[in-house]
Amino acid sequence: MTSGQTTPTDQTEHRYVLTLGCPDRTGIVARISAFLTEIGGWITEAGYHSDDDTGWFFTRQAIRADEVSFSADELRARFAAEVAAELGPETEWRLTDSRDTKSVVLLVSKETHCLIDLLGRAHRGELPATIRAVVGNHPQLEELATRFEIPFHHVPFGGERKAEAFAELARIVDGYQPDAVVLARFMQILPPKLCDAWAGRAINIHHSFLPSFIGARPYHQAFARGVKLIGATCHYVTADLDAGPIIEQDVIRVDHSDSVSDMVRQGRDIETLVLSRGLRWHLEDRILVHGRKTVIFN
Amino acid sequence: MTSGQTTPTDQTEHRYVLTLGCPDRTGIVARISAFLTEIGGWITEAGYHSDDDTGWFFTRQAIRADEVSFSADELRARFAAEVAAELGPETEWRLTDSRDTKSVVLLVSKETHCLIDLLGRAHRGELPATIRAVVGNHPQLEELATRFEIPFHHVPFGGERKAEAFAELARIVDGYQPDAVVLARFMQILPPKLCDAWAGRAINIHHSFLPSFIGARPYHQAFARGVKLIGATCHYVTADLDAGPIIEQDVIRVDHSDSVSDMVRQGRDIETLVLSRGLRWHLEDRILVHGRKTVIFN
Amino acid sequence: MTSGQTTPTDQTEHRYVLTLGCPDRTGIVARISAFLTEIGGWITEAGYHSDDDTGWFFTRQAIRADEVSFSADELRARFAAEVAAELGPETEWRLTDSRDTKSVVLLVSKETHCLIDLLGRAHRGELPATIRAVVGNHPQLEELATRFEIPFHHVPFGGERKAEAFAELARIVDGYQPDAVVLARFMQILPPKLCDAWAGRAINIHHSFLPSFIGARPYHQAFARGVKLIGATCHYVTADLDAGPIIEQDVIRVDHSDSVSDMVRQGRDIETLVLSRGLRWHLEDRILVHGRKTVIFN
Amino acid sequence: MTSGQTTPTDQTEHRYVLTLGCPDRTGIVARISAFLTEIGGWITEAGYHSDDDTGWFFTRQAIRADEVSFSADELRARFAAEVAAELGPETEWRLTDSRDTKSVVLLVSKETHCLIDLLGRAHRGELPATIRAVVGNHPQLEELATRFEIPFHHVPFGGERKAEAFAELARIVDGYQPDAVVLARFMQILPPKLCDAWAGRAINIHHSFLPSFIGARPYHQAFARGVKLIGATCHYVTADLDAGPIIEQDVIRVDHSDSVSDMVRQGRDIETLVLSRGLRWHLEDRILVHGRKTVIFN
Repeated sequence: MTSGQTTPTDQTEHRYVLTLGCPDRTGIVARISAFLTEIGGWITEAGYHSDDDTGWFFTRQAIRADEVSFSADELRARFAAEVAAELGPETEWRLTDSRDTKSVVLLVSKETHCLIDLLGRAHRGELPATIRAVVGNHPQLEELATRFEIPFHHVPFGGERKAEAFAELARIVDGYQPDAVVLARFMQILPPKLCDAWAGRAINIHHSFLPSFIGARPYHQAFARGVKLIGATCHYVTADLDAGPIIEQDVIRVDHSDSVSDMVRQGRDIETLVLSRGLRWHLEDRILVHGRKTVIFN
Repeated sequence: MTSGQTTPTDQTEHRYVLTLGCPDRTGIVARISAFLTEIGGWITEAGYHSDDDTGWFFTRQAIRADEVSFSADELRARFAAEVAAELGPETEWRLTDSRDTKSVVLLVSKETHCLIDLLGRAHRGELPATIRAVVGNHPQLEELATRFEIPFHHVPFGGERKAEAFAELARIVDGYQPDAVVLARFMQILPPKLCDAWAGRAINIHHSFLPSFIGARPYHQAFARGVKLIGATCHYVTADLDAGPIIEQDVIRVDHSDSVSDMVRQGRDIETLVLSRGLRWHLEDRILVHGRKTVIFN
Repeated sequence: MTSGQTTPTDQTEHRYVLTLGCPDRTGIVARISAFLTEIGGWITEAGYHSDDDTGWFFTRQAIRADEVSFSADELRARFAAEVAAELGPETEWRLTDSRDTKSVVLLVSKETHCLIDLLGRAHRGELPATIRAVVGNHPQLEELATRFEIPFHHVPFGGERKAEAFAELARIVDGYQPDAVVLARFMQILPPKLCDAWAGRAINIHHSFLPSFIGARPYHQAFARGVKLIGATCHYVTADLDAGPIIEQDVIRVDHSDSVSDMVRQGRDIETLVLSRGLRWHLEDRILVHGRKTVIFN
Repeated sequence: MTSGQTTPTDQTEHRYVLTLGCPDRTGIVARISAFLTEIGGWITEAGYHSDDDTGWFFTRQAIRADEVSFSADELRARFAAEVAAELGPETEWRLTDSRDTKSVVLLVSKETHCLIDLLGRAHRGELPATIRAVVGNHPQLEELATRFEIPFHHVPFGGERKAEAFAELARIVDGYQPDAVVLARFMQILPPKLCDAWAGRAINIHHSFLPSFIGARPYHQAFARGVKLIGATCHYVTADLDAGPIIEQDVIRVDHSDSVSDMVRQGRDIETLVLSRGLRWHLEDRILVHGRKTVIFN
């Protein structure tokens, strides 16, 4: 255990994971499961959702890869030709191979709690991905990243150089081709261009129970309003501030004796948990985004 | 058990409860506790809160009445003269006698869940008060109230008669001199005049985690936003819609498979719990309101 | 709304629900979904579980009945011949029709909270079943049942007549052919013979977080041990006391200031919730029992 | 931020904290608060508990040290002479100075989650103490401790040397005179002698909701029983295995799809939270132990 990360140990089984969304009609499940049976697929997990509100159908299926005599690429080609084509042009699907290790880049500022938590999970092989780099708009967290042998990039955002800084950030991040760009209390608002470029991959943790307390200093807002629970929200980043599709939320109880700094301290625990859960589901291809909402098979 | 309500059984001990709020300074606790000792008071519960934000001090103390050789009225007179006078003109305090049974009036519309829950609690003597009457803007819930032998008043709110209806409502409610006016899913917005008249006594249950989803159809709003938890909020009614001091909140988990009607159904359970807890604390003099916030000794 | 119960309103859609468990192998999902497609079934809910521990496969599928041109009986015959026969002799399956209203009998003693809660749910049409009768080993709750127009039977259990009393209880209950026999704080231990006769239909609420505090006076046990959370457990009744398959559990926080009677009072809320959730899932055919454990598709 | 730990930042205020337990009688609060007033004490937090079950009284009071013209030692001497003496020989009390930084020693084995969590809290100055050392019965976690610049001691427990190993452990730990000895998933059962020596200072995290699943492999036990919630318990260590006074407990929901390894992974989050909360309360002198139970002022 001399490096900063361990090969994921909780997911030793070799699996293919299929996720799919399309307009609903009869026979979709039969079509997909017939295909999986034909190729010899042993389904280990299957989730289905018929959305009455949108008229869409969503599914996620995990099969044992070792019992299938195809590579992931062959499987994709066959699925495209034999199933997806039938389901119509709106169909969105992915097939991933659990052996293709995913990569993550973390964006941070000065707060350590989400960073240490994710470094710890990667260190013990609990995160189904490799943290490739940490990028900070301040230099303070370099030391922590280095302790866990993760490359750190400092991109200063001060003064007039915001546009330039975001361009530099994009170059660095895109160089890693990450499956997830995690704003781990990054404290900078991504410009629309980056929101687009990283759509469905940029994950933020907001320190309130959204849609309450959007924007700056949510614990101060919560304190002023006198709420009895405070929360955290993990969501995909969109150009609409703190309004992207929600992945996960949770809350903890506070009372009149809790000051803002008590809320900040206690809130760290819930931010950490909510972000780590949301990131895990993303990396395990458990989340399907449709419009402003998520379907999560977990 | 032939009547609709049982004498409260959980609070058999005879107690005096003192609640007090005043600008903070040294010696307040000593002054109050010295007074309670002088009169022979055995303190069974004591809560204190020094509020850094407002510079106020709050306390609630319960003492065994049977060991005090004064009536509640004598005690109030002595406390006013010997303690409260010293603490300054801003001091707000109350001393209640657990033998003075409190009274409650419920305002309802068509939803039964909060009504049945509170009738059930009163029936088994769990509520530290008597439900004196139920007032509905629709006639449907008369039968339920009658089953539990509680008087029901129907005050129609339709068409042009809203002002008249509220005047009638006020006459009926005020006739009972209630310690709590509970809007148990009443679905009508109280006019400012009634908010004033019933300040600190009118308790509402709102079916969202405030300040999210103020106003009408909060479950529809929650569904549209795709939140992962739905909640309920019990608060004192003020002229500012759904913005009164929050007493209690709680949440339950929902997911993509929950329709609006699933949320409505599941939400009933959390509305019921949150309202019953808030009402209980109010009736036990556990809540001190200061500005837009509550201090709750529980 | 002159009667005690309303026709269930939350499940207006006419549905067939298939539940099935069998030894796992490839192709089961494909076989079932092909069958459902052939008969024109539009799947509105589908749950699957491959149990690594036991090597069994479990599924629950709900389809829109109105789009199927078969009666439930025809469907059962076809499914038996075309699918179940292939899946082997250990296969257990049921196909239910949401129009066949289920029936429930409640067994009670003196505690009112679970009874009132379930009567209230039935009254507003929230329970997907009809409460056919209430049977009490004490006469006290007759009045409540009668208020909601549900027949009440008093079966005294005192003295030497326990065996006789259980025989009488069995005669009464079996006369209703109930889909669920709910021990709503019944406080009598069913004899093995009745546990067998009602296997998979008798549902108990135990007022602790099982397996902690089995048997009598669990809140006293919890108080003595100084736990920081108390709970309730809904489970199927077996001859092994408080050890049947667990359906649902939940907890609430307590602290040093809570006496046993505080725990009893607060515990009622969690008992009520846990029982009502477990009963609902049972009535919606969401629970598959396998050995000592449950698979719950909710 | 070049060192492994930061001076605690959340508790910048200089405070004296008094904790006291004694047989209950009237006038105790008055006596203590009169004393605090005489010395000019501004009470910032005060908790009281009259325990009906044991007839004992407990209190915790925090006062602003800067407004008191005495040192902590002078204050202790005065309190002993002027108050404690009066309250009788059974009285137990402590007065601590928030400037006296507390020290912690962590005992670990191979699991990293509680260790990294506590190192992270110490690193950001959130823990009101200094972690003086980490002692492991295996060498694996040395590297992590070293990354955070905390001394690591390896004490092998294999084979025949258990008694010797415990003696060595005691020498190392006692050398730091710690205020808390934290068994952060240490996986060794302390001998009675060490339980005595560290009574009230040794804190363990057990990975179940005690008293369920005492002893080894609690997640395997939970899986076999089919519980719907799994938990963790933080408690003081006594010679009675997993039966010491409970400090804190919490739970998370699991279902039939969770394997033992899923429970192990999800359980880490709740173990981490529960241990960190319990340790914090211990270090802030919020916990009074009486018999087998704790009174916690938080």
